[in-house]
Amino acid sequence: MAMHKSPIRLLLGIAGLLMAISCSNQPPKNTEKTNMETTEKKNESAIFPRGERAPADYFTGMVYLQMLAQKTGDNDYSIGSVTFERGARSNWHTHPAGQTLIVIEGRGLYQEKGKPIKTINKGETIICNSNIEHWHGASSESQMTHIAITNDKGQGGVIWLKPVTDEEYKAGGK
Amino acid sequence: MAMHKSPIRLLLGIAGLLMAISCSNQPPKNTEKTNMETTEKKNESAIFPRGERAPADYFTGMVYLQMLAQKTGDNDYSIGSVTFERGARSNWHTHPAGQTLIVIEGRGLYQEKGKPIKTINKGETIICNSNIEHWHGASSESQMTHIAITNDKGQGGVIWLKPVTDEEYKAGGK
Repeated sequence: MAMHKSPIRLLLGIAGLLMAISCSNQPPKNTEKTNMETTEKKNESAIFPRGERAPADYFTGMVYLQMLAQKTGDNDYSIGSVTFERGARSNWHTHPAGQTLIVIEGRGLYQEKGKPIKTINKGETIICNSNIEHWHGASSESQMTHIAITNDKGQGGVIWLKPVTDEEYKAGGK
Repeated sequence: MAMHKSPIRLLLGIAGLLMAISCSNQPPKNTEKTNMETTEKKNESAIFPRGERAPADYFTGMVYLQMLAQKTGDNDYSIGSVTFERGARSNWHTHPAGQTLIVIEGRGLYQEKGKPIKTINKGETIICNSNIEHWHGASSESQMTHIAITNDKGQGGVIWLKPVTDEEYKAGGK
């Protein structure tokens, strides 16, 4: 989630252009229509826009980030809304100054290295202490959206590590 | 709604029983039915419990606070979900280290001393800079719930001042 906006916007722009070209040549399949309707329904109840695709280097599956606030003079943190589609998750990572997650939609998973995977639900707040290796994401049967308040006291917000393998995820991903 | 599930289930059970008896004798009035349906919808969509009544010394009208996280070693802030019923608002106040508001439901009002009243809506994030006198609350036609991230760097989170008068509120409370 410590990422630059412009390359992502460029990629999204290209993807959008390709989709527009593709759509003008052939009508969307029924399954696509259903997906679009589902997305529209989601947007009605969603608090924030879904945002831009998060970088595949740091996430497995479809993950979206909508920034809500940048670090300021008063605030030693940035805030974003992160949406994980079913089965999607972050890489293993640590926060040099910690992070707070507030689940606002769906059901997800959270695991600190060496501990069991925990299910996290809408309405729950999770404190990720500094320098603890962990990952979070959606469960396999539900998407999950959380607000992430990422502390940054001069050492950056996130140190990204290796992806969470399917075996690691499946250990608690039911 | 800082309440235990079992007494509520009991009350709902009794209410259901009474309604069933009542329905067999006379149909419920339309207004009662509508109110109940509205309440049920609210409870289904709410992310957090409404919490406990906020102190009348610092708020006008019905305001509720559900704490989500306390200040910790990593986090120089506490987090709460604050629900203002229609027309309710905070006193004028300042934050020695600032505050961030994230509106998650309804429509509200926000005013800094000497500036016009601003309407704030679901999905908006508001940065309250340190030592700026201001107030926030619901609009007169809608309740409002916001997450409040209140910075505390050793000087406390809030300095409370005088109530927002009806005249001050009505200047932008439509």
